Parts: sequence; C-alpha cells; structure tokens
Amino acid sequence: MEKRDTICAISTPVGKGGIAVARISGREAKVISEHHLCSLKGKAVTLHDRRAKVCRLCDGYDFVDEVVVIFFAAPHSYTGEDVVEISCHGSLYVQERLLRLLCDGGARMAEPGEFTLRAFLNGRLNLSQAEAVADLIDSQSKASHGLAVSQMRGGYARELEELRQQFVDLAALLELELDFSDEEVEFADRRRIRDTVNALKQKVSRLIDSFRMGNAIKNGVPVAIVGAPNAGKSSLLNALLREDRAIVSPVPGTTRDTVEETLSIDGIMFRFIDTAGLRDSDDSIEKLGIERSRKAIEKAQIVIVVHDVSAGPDEEAEAMFADVSQTDRIILLVHNKCDLVLPPYPDGLTVSAKTGLGVDELKQSMIKAFREKMTDQGDVLLTNARHYEAMGKVLSALIEVEKGMDSELPTDLMVIDIRDALYHLGTITGKVTSDEVLSSVFSRFCIGK
Amino acid sequence: MEKRDTICAISTPVGKGGIAVARISGREAKVISEHHLCSLKGKAVTLHDRRAKVCRLCDGYDFVDEVVVIFFAAPHSYTGEDVVEISCHGSLYVQERLLRLLCDGGARMAEPGEFTLRAFLNGRLNLSQAEAVADLIDSQSKASHGLAVSQMRGGYARELEELRQQFVDLAALLELELDFSDEEVEFADRRRIRDTVNALKQKVSRLIDSFRMGNAIKNGVPVAIVGAPNAGKSSLLNALLREDRAIVSPVPGTTRDTVEETLSIDGIMFRFIDTAGLRDSDDSIEKLGIERSRKAIEKAQIVIVVHDVSAGPDEEAEAMFADVSQTDRIILLVHNKCDLVLPPYPDGLTVSAKTGLGVDELKQSMIKAFREKMTDQGDVLLTNARHYEAMGKVLSALIEVEKGMDSELPTDLMVIDIRDALYHLGTITGKVTSDEVLSSVFSRFCIGK
Repeated sequence: MEKRDTICAISTPVGKGGIAVARISGREAKVISEHHLCSLKGKAVTLHDRRAKVCRLCDGYDFVDEVVVIFFAAPHSYTGEDVVEISCHGSLYVQERLLRLLCDGGARMAEPGEFTLRAFLNGRLNLSQAEAVADLIDSQSKASHGLAVSQMRGGYARELEELRQQFVDLAALLELELDFSDEEVEFADRRRIRDTVNALKQKVSRLIDSFRMGNAIKNGVPVAIVGAPNAGKSSLLNALLREDRAIVSPVPGTTRDTVEETLSIDGIMFRFIDTAGLRDSDDSIEKLGIERSRKAIEKAQIVIVVHDVSAGPDEEAEAMFADVSQTDRIILLVHNKCDLVLPPYPDGLTVSAKTGLGVDELKQSMIKAFREKMTDQGDVLLTNARHYEAMGKVLSALIEVEKGMDSELPTDLMVIDIRDALYHLGTITGKVTSDEVLSSVFSRFCIGK
Repeated sequence: MEKRDTICAISTPVGKGGIAVARISGREAKVISEHHLCSLKGKAVTLHDRRAKVCRLCDGYDFVDEVVVIFFAAPHSYTGEDVVEISCHGSLYVQERLLRLLCDGGARMAEPGEFTLRAFLNGRLNLSQAEAVADLIDSQSKASHGLAVSQMRGGYARELEELRQQFVDLAALLELELDFSDEEVEFADRRRIRDTVNALKQKVSRLIDSFRMGNAIKNGVPVAIVGAPNAGKSSLLNALLREDRAIVSPVPGTTRDTVEETLSIDGIMFRFIDTAGLRDSDDSIEKLGIERSRKAIEKAQIVIVVHDVSAGPDEEAEAMFADVSQTDRIILLVHNKCDLVLPPYPDGLTVSAKTGLGVDELKQSMIKAFREKMTDQGDVLLTNARHYEAMGKVLSALIEVEKGMDSELPTDLMVIDIRDALYHLGTITGKVTSDEVLSSVFSRFCIGK
C-alpha cells in the first residue's frame, strides 16, 4: 500500500459546539499529533492503538486545550492508514488553532471526502459503498437511511457483482467462439447467448426503472396536489402538514431545509412540489393553474387530485384524473369539503381539509400505494444519478449486442460491446475508474469525511 | 457521590457533518449504550475503560450505523460519572435516531451545560472553572482564549482563594476580640485590622476595575471612530478592515457573527462600535453625528478621533479630543487625507485612508496602547459579569466594615459584614451556591457540554 501524505480536517459539523473532532490520516498522522500533545503531568505522549488518552494540546509552551485523543493504527482504520482523532472543545478558535498546529507540523487540509477517497483507494470500501457514506450523511428519513445503509453494507455491490459475472460469462461464451473462429465451428449455442442477453436486458432495465423510486426514497417522494381553483388545495396541504410530528426533533434544524414542504409518514418522506402557489396565495387568485398542475404532475410520483364536492361534478378534475391515469403515477382522488356535502361518488377518498375528516386515511393511502409500488421494484434500487447513467450505457451496449446478433455481426464486434457494458458496470463499483469520476464523486462529500 | 440519572446529548455542533458525537453520562450510561451495540461480527459488546471500539449501533434487529464508542469509567471522566461517547456518522437522521434509542433505553435529554454542571457537583471543577469552559467554547481570539484557559486551569480560582483566606483571617482577628469582649480587653490591634481592610479594599477595587479590560478581551475591545462629517471616518474603517487576514479561516463562519465589524490584530480582537452609520452612509449625510459620537465614546475603550487635514484646523475634533482626554479611554488622534496635505501638527498619526498610508502604524498604536493598559491591570482579570457583580458586593461589605470602624461599631456587627463579603466571594467559585445561580450559570452553555 502506497503511503500517502498526511491530511487533516474537522470532521464534526461546522460551527461552535460542546466538542469538535479533528481527524488526521496518513503516514505522519501519529508523529504530527504526538508532537503537540503531552500528558496532564506534562510528559511526552505515545499513542497506542484504540486507546483514548486525555492530553494537553500545546503550541510550544502555550497550552491550547485539554483534549481526548484516539489512535487507529493502519490498516484497521477508516482510511486504512494511521488515523488520529483529536476531540477538543468546540470553540471556533480552538478548532482553527488545532488545524493550524497540525498544518504547521506537516499535515495539509483535507479536500471534501478525501478520507473516504483514501478508504476507497486503500480497498476499505468500493466506490458505491463510498457513495453510500455520503448518502448516509445526507439521509433525512428512515427509508433513505435504510437505502444508504444497505448500499454501504455491500448488498448492492454484491448484486452488481453478480450482474458483472453474468456479463463475464457471456463474454467468455462469445470469446470461445472467437478462438475457434478459424475453424468456422460455432461452438456456443446461439439461442443460449440470446437468452442470456435477454435476461440481462430485463435485469438492467429493472434497475434503471428503479432509479425513479430510489431517488424518490432518497430525496423524498414527490407529491403534486392539483385541482380546480377553490377546490381547497392549500387547505388540504395545511391539513396534511398540521400534525406532522413524525420527527420530534431533539436536533434543531432537522427538517425542512428546502422551501418545499415535506411530510414524514412511517419513515418515508413525502415532498410536496410546486407548493409555492398553494402556500402563499388563495386558491382563488391562483393564476396559471392548469399549466402549473401539468408541470407538477410531470415531476410527481403521487398526484392528489382535489375535487370540491360542494361545487358538484367537476369536469376539470375528471379530465385531469383521466389524464394522469394514463401515466404511471400513483393517483389519489380526493373529494374535499365533505363536512358540507357527502359525495355521491363511489370512488375516491372522502375528506374535509377544514375539519380534518379523512386526512389520516389520505396519508395511509399515500403510504400504502407507495409501498406497493416499491415492492414491485425488487430489493435493489438505484439511488445514484451516476449509477443510473452508467446503467443506461450498459443497456445501450446490450441493445447493440442484440442488434449484432440479429444482423449476424462478427463475434469479435459483439465482444467489444460486452466489454463496453462491463466497463460501465465497473465504473459503478469503482473497478474501473478515472480521476475525473473520483473527483466528481468525492466533491459532494463534506469536509472531514 | 450520589449516583444520578443518565443524560444524553449530541455534543458536537448542531447540523450535518462527517461525524457527530453523542455523550451519555450517569449510572446507567454503560448499560444503556451496550444494549444497543454489538460487535461487527454481531456479538454482544462489553465496554472497557478508555478503549475505543468499532461497533454496530442497532435498534433491535435493525442496523442503524457503524460507530466508534469510548467508555470513561467514573470517577475519571469529564463529569465524574460513567461516561460513554458514541461517534456516529453526522447525518441528522442518525443523530436523532441515536438519541431516541438512548432515551428509549432510559436516558433523558441533557439540559444545556448539564454535563459540566455534573462535573461541578461531583467536584471535578469549581464554579468559575465551569464558567471558563463556556468562555473557552465562545472564544474567538487568542486573547479571549487565553483568559478562558487561565480561568479554567485554576489560576484565577487560586487568586480568589488567597483573597478569601485574607477575609477569613480578618474575621478571625475580629472574632478573637468578640470571644473576649466580656473582659473588655481589645486584643486585636485595631490599626492592623484597618490596614488589612484597606489592603483588601484595594485588591477588590483593582479586580472590579479589571472587569472592563477582561470584558474587552473576552468580547472584543470596543473602538469608536469619531470626527467631523467628511473627515473620512468610514474610509478609515474600510482601510483598517481591508487587510484583515489575521484569521485565515479554515473553519467557515469563524468571524463576524455580529453586525459589528471586528478586526483581529496580534490575537486581540477589536470591535468597532456604532459603525452602522459609518458603514451604510456617506459621512456627508451622517445625521446626529455628535450625539452618536458621544454614545460611542461612552462604550469605547479606544477612541480614534479623525481629523481631515485638508480642511485645516478642526475645532470640533479638538474639542472632542479634549473631552475624551478627560476620561480613561485610550485616545488616538488621526490626521487623515495626508496624501493631499502634510499635517503641520506635531501630535497624532499621519494617515491616508485612501492610499493606506499610516494604517499599519495606526493598528500598531492601537495594540500598543491596549497592551500597556492591560499590563497595568495585573495578572488576574475579571471577565464574568456575575463575578463582577459579586465582587461589587464584596467591596460594599468592606466599605461597611470601614465605616463600622470609624464609628466604633460593636465588633459582632462588623463580623457580620465580613461574613457577608465571604459569602459573595464564595458564590464566585461555587463554595456557596443556590439552584438559581447554578441554573443561570449553566443555561448559557450549549447543549451537550
């Protein structure tokens, strides 16, 4: 294993707090740290693997802080290198001074994600696992956390490895043909190859389709509320959000860092899209309603069509319902204002945004419909745009193989397509990689991870 | 030592980051933590004193995160109780879930400063040291950090203890008189008592005076820039701030969380007060200039009087200079616009805010004058408003003693005043305390400390 230079960063969130933790990784991590530490009695400190030590952090004769230090010896550390973690008081001044001391000692400030990059380079994680670390840190709901955890723990990578193996087998079959092509003997059973290509195509397509779902779970399931002006869309949104105590947050700032409204039901986050118009204005003064609805439907996974039952039959809502039914969105028809009139319609949900009647049932319908759709998708979901893109290229390569078989292309050309598919699969787990891919993957990390 | 219930909190700054650390303290800390942990191989975990363990954090069969756990056995921990620190991924979801698990297991969320409160109650720190922990976390400059560190390490408490001992001796002298008062023999040398009271008064007064300085170092030295309209006050402020690279901040958000402008020179922070008028408006449209100047001078430790040398003699500036000279403020006379005209005056600094001429010299003068004043104050500075108030009461009690001696008050009444002084001294280090004082001291802490 190549011994890399030493990097350092504050790994805890930015700001002032009770404590902050600096992480140092690399060949000099131990020496640089020990240089600035002494025991509470003023003696030199030697760090031992996984032992927590209470030390003084000093700048020459200057006392800086009392700190707790842990050393993780290579290779059994997060990065696979020698790692030191120094836990200091969470003062901005102390954090900064500590980093400055480490840098003066020969470390350099880590780039975002550089610790995890090293873990990847040192074989502690594959690339999709490394990406899952960032997803885990970003996770805001039970479902998105679950996805990240399963990807981090390698189930996802195993599934991809199986897929890769099937491609390798296919290539081997074709190459066998190739080796003997001089003898013009077609060893491989062409039908068998065709079946394999077909099965792979289905698998890859399923994964590609799962991205929509995976992305929804990761970033929140997009929900659009549509309907005629005055149908009570904004009241319904308010009624849905009113009791959102799903996250009883001991950590301030847990929810809602976007302008969109979110609602957490049973660990799944729903994200109401294009609600600006709903939130800030009366329905009645809502302009461009139809256009806005269409756009929201386009982005949504779940569409709630609101119908004002007190206004009698609503052709617009019906048309909208019929429209949306053509797509693969989950569609929920809601008869609102049922405190005034009972709907004479058999379909749809009976709700009163005003009194709260039926709002819980609506939530249950949302989660039930979404869960059913989720089950259809199988166990492994694509959640990452980079993987989605790579998988698209795998599919294209497969389609090329299929075409090649149809037009009886020479085997060696088909092998090139299979190799191409293998290459793109390899970029997902990082078997194949480039500096460009790595830097784009790790730049989305926070500093210190 | 009383065994207290178990508290938990996230001790790292609020928000998302690479890692976050939860701290658990109390009699059940170890049991509650171990219950949710297992080894990477799925076995039960037993925590050992000061050993870092990489574990899985689980909610029943549900994997939540891979964490690093350290146990600090009582009494050699921060709080003096059993303490567990769990370092998890810094996702908001994971932080929240971890706290929820701990609370489900029987811990409760800690109040702000409750860990340090326990450290105080368990005799790990005295009250002024505990307060210094909060100051340390708040510190933003080398000087304020230094003050907090010296108070935390006990030098301050030692000085107060000496002072207290002198009061105890004085009380003993007087009480000796009291014991023998029946025999009407005046044992104690009244002159000696008077000398002691005088010496104590001086010491206490010096400490009270040092609060202004201590507070300035802690919160930034208040600087006022005054002068006639058009003298170039705002340009001077800009020139002073222009090269403020004193804090090359690797931690974003290190400086300026107040609206006031600050400037760090040689580790001391200067705070320009009432700059709203200077920053946002032309000097020429500055209204209420005189009134604003007077108010700024009142709050300032350093007053920079700006004189526009191109406008010839400035009676207003001269009057202001004379005024300020009467106070104990540091006063710096600055002749501005010296790129246009050289000042024919022997006093003051020659500056051009426009070209930057003399700006460095002005900074050096600020720091030099402040350092000189600091040296006058002696080693120990009061930095805490609570201590300042208590010390004021100590002084009042001493003055009562003095008056008592003048009017030949009975000794037992004077002893009451000395006891009163001792009481107030005791409130500073926490020898004497009340729930009210404790809750006001610890409520200014952040959660998790």
